[in-house]
Amino acid sequence: MKKTLVLIVSVFTLTLSAQQTATEDSVTLKKFYNTSLLNGKSYVWLDHLSNQIGPRLSGSINAEKAVEWGEQELKKLGLDKVWLQSVMVPKWTRGVAEYAYIETDPGKTTNVPICALGGSIATPIGGLKANVVEVQGIEDLRKLGTTAIEGKIVFFNRPIQADLINTFEAYGGCVDQRYSGAKEAANFGAVGVIVRSMNLRNDDLPHTGAMSYGDLKDLDKIPAAAISTNGANLLSSMLKLNPEIKFFMNMNCRSWKDVESHNVIGEIKGAEFPNEYIVVGGHLDSWDMGDGSHDDGAGIVQSMEVLRLFKETGYTPKRTIRVVLFMNEENGLRGGKKYAEEAQRKEEKHVFALESDAGGFTPRGFSFDCDATNFAQIESWKPLFAPYLIHQFSKGGSGADISPLKNEKIVLAGLRPDSQRYFDHHHAANDTFDAINKRELELGAATMTSLVYLMDKYGTK
Amino acid sequence: MKKTLVLIVSVFTLTLSAQQTATEDSVTLKKFYNTSLLNGKSYVWLDHLSNQIGPRLSGSINAEKAVEWGEQELKKLGLDKVWLQSVMVPKWTRGVAEYAYIETDPGKTTNVPICALGGSIATPIGGLKANVVEVQGIEDLRKLGTTAIEGKIVFFNRPIQADLINTFEAYGGCVDQRYSGAKEAANFGAVGVIVRSMNLRNDDLPHTGAMSYGDLKDLDKIPAAAISTNGANLLSSMLKLNPEIKFFMNMNCRSWKDVESHNVIGEIKGAEFPNEYIVVGGHLDSWDMGDGSHDDGAGIVQSMEVLRLFKETGYTPKRTIRVVLFMNEENGLRGGKKYAEEAQRKEEKHVFALESDAGGFTPRGFSFDCDATNFAQIESWKPLFAPYLIHQFSKGGSGADISPLKNEKIVLAGLRPDSQRYFDHHHAANDTFDAINKRELELGAATMTSLVYLMDKYGTK
Repeated sequence: MKKTLVLIVSVFTLTLSAQQTATEDSVTLKKFYNTSLLNGKSYVWLDHLSNQIGPRLSGSINAEKAVEWGEQELKKLGLDKVWLQSVMVPKWTRGVAEYAYIETDPGKTTNVPICALGGSIATPIGGLKANVVEVQGIEDLRKLGTTAIEGKIVFFNRPIQADLINTFEAYGGCVDQRYSGAKEAANFGAVGVIVRSMNLRNDDLPHTGAMSYGDLKDLDKIPAAAISTNGANLLSSMLKLNPEIKFFMNMNCRSWKDVESHNVIGEIKGAEFPNEYIVVGGHLDSWDMGDGSHDDGAGIVQSMEVLRLFKETGYTPKRTIRVVLFMNEENGLRGGKKYAEEAQRKEEKHVFALESDAGGFTPRGFSFDCDATNFAQIESWKPLFAPYLIHQFSKGGSGADISPLKNEKIVLAGLRPDSQRYFDHHHAANDTFDAINKRELELGAATMTSLVYLMDKYGTK
Repeated sequence: MKKTLVLIVSVFTLTLSAQQTATEDSVTLKKFYNTSLLNGKSYVWLDHLSNQIGPRLSGSINAEKAVEWGEQELKKLGLDKVWLQSVMVPKWTRGVAEYAYIETDPGKTTNVPICALGGSIATPIGGLKANVVEVQGIEDLRKLGTTAIEGKIVFFNRPIQADLINTFEAYGGCVDQRYSGAKEAANFGAVGVIVRSMNLRNDDLPHTGAMSYGDLKDLDKIPAAAISTNGANLLSSMLKLNPEIKFFMNMNCRSWKDVESHNVIGEIKGAEFPNEYIVVGGHLDSWDMGDGSHDDGAGIVQSMEVLRLFKETGYTPKRTIRVVLFMNEENGLRGGKKYAEEAQRKEEKHVFALESDAGGFTPRGFSFDCDATNFAQIESWKPLFAPYLIHQFSKGGSGADISPLKNEKIVLAGLRPDSQRYFDHHHAANDTFDAINKRELELGAATMTSLVYLMDKYGTK
């Protein structure tokens, strides 16, 4: 009888204390959200990064300006340590703007918007003109064979699949054309490649992005460009009317020797477990078309805001919290690789890493790369996030920059904002500050802060 | 033994058939979403309504053009019946654009953007100039009293609360200033009213909206305008420096006699229960500042799309499905009231009504006004919506136009899109088509279609 009573009392006490903890946590989360929405810094920071610095392709002067700015701003936060981590990055420049047209008859031309894919070689001086063969993907090349392709420009026109709800999935279904199209087409004797922009709407903006020649020899490389979705539709319909039309493209891009750049790192030392590290980050570099507000200026300022909100609300983390502004995600991932190498070399035990690199839109949740036990713990926190309409807790990818940290123990996560508008702006001239909504950005920052807080407080399993 | 076996078999069969039904439903929902995203009509319709017709304030020529267009488009869908329902609506016109400035010293003025609130009287010819008294809400008027207010312009400057996640809740916390501010201030001898725009960001756009003089006599009425958030901040800071500054406002708005307008109605006759009615709708009228794309062009085309998607995918509803394009939600609700009156007069049994009037943004779910039994049935459908990231099923309001249909039996519902950007555009000059994202609009239409399908198939409880 006594035993039962003790048991009942302790179960009661435990339940009560669990409830108290949940209440404490919900009060803390509310503080993060309120501070971010009423007194946030993320939007002002992004205004500066986007409008005062602008596009910041790896190896560019702007990228170095961004490094300097990131270091200065982190120093203002009163963190325990702020430093730069040196990393060699590729340097590729676009040069004079690209120029392209469709030639239906000699002298009869229609201009179409193109831009070189990142890493492409230039066209021969004076440009390149050739017939066009349209394909729906890399697999079509083999079917057509060298005879049909040799001496021509291959036009990869598989559209992004509009009936997938997650636009990143739709992107994933097409991006092979952009990344490997030139390498594959070159093997069949193509002289150039144009790729339909990875964009879900019809407009006049070409979307750049990384491409690779794999192990092709320099002499075998062919120039590769993105064409706007409207341009692609026009070209395709013209080819149906007359397969003999020609395409002209002129590009002046160039690869240079690697140059030195930096990851920017700031940390708050952990009060209880200083040797356990939690990383939150995004990438500081961007493509050169817009100002990189969504990709990934948003992730940068949100990550910085996590540490600022801890400071501002007086939360002392148990573990060491690092913000990392990674360099060179877009065309090399050198920053992410370097950070992981150094972490391994110094035997720093990383327990959790969170990346924001999916745009500054209304946050919906997170995706996780972790084991079942940790995922179960994270799922138990769902009610804490419900008041903020954060509902997606899925297993899946996390973020490119933090992926080199992967091991059996670590929990990796990616912020998942609403994805519907992301590919309207991705890698294009309209990835600009005016497409950012202040509240959506701030909600994202608070959502990240809340997860980092919970992971810090309860640790990984 | 036999009995048990029969029971087991029937439970098994039932479970199996429940699973089959769930699978059928998920296949049907997928069809709605795919058709809306790949071959939808909502975006093209909205393009026409917004860009070819434009703003459509009740009683205006544009409102009549919109009625005509709605009728024509519904007729093209091959519905069983399309008709206009006559309704008398208020007619209020803005007249020559408003003009306002802050006067710090005689001749030293700074212009600020204002617009008349819908229903306001004009200023005296030549405008109105007076000292300003700033308040944070109606309750401040009593504290200040007539001595402090008499002869002055009352400036309602309580900002919309930014730390509420649901922006409609934030709006609800401020809208009393706009709706009743003039009536209340007039009772203390104020000569005019300016109200901070119900906008969550700082910009230069004044947001109009309905106001009422209640039972004030004509002679006691005072003019009321909205001032942009930047304008409000400026005025407030200037008042702090010098409480004696004056405000000048000139408005030329006017109320006229009621005029005839119409609800536009189309229906598909129910195959099994033709005398049970389901309504889906939005409001066809809009304010006159932008083109009313979000408020409520989006709701109009999404509602039309519900019936089109049924036709397109070959779904034959059991119950009679009506689309209603309501007239005059913004400044009278005459269309909604008229529709409900007629339904009652004809003893039409309405079982379900769904309104979309919260913007064309990414749909997140629905709010319901219904009893517990019906809500439980609806909640059991959540898994069907999960692939489309529809997760909010809450009890609460539905929509203004369908609210007069309320009785003990009916289920009322409102589509709940992401609310973060809505009040950036609401009732302002930037509620325009370019702020609409095609996919978000289409996802909303498919989400509404899915709910109407389930309510039609399973009926109310």
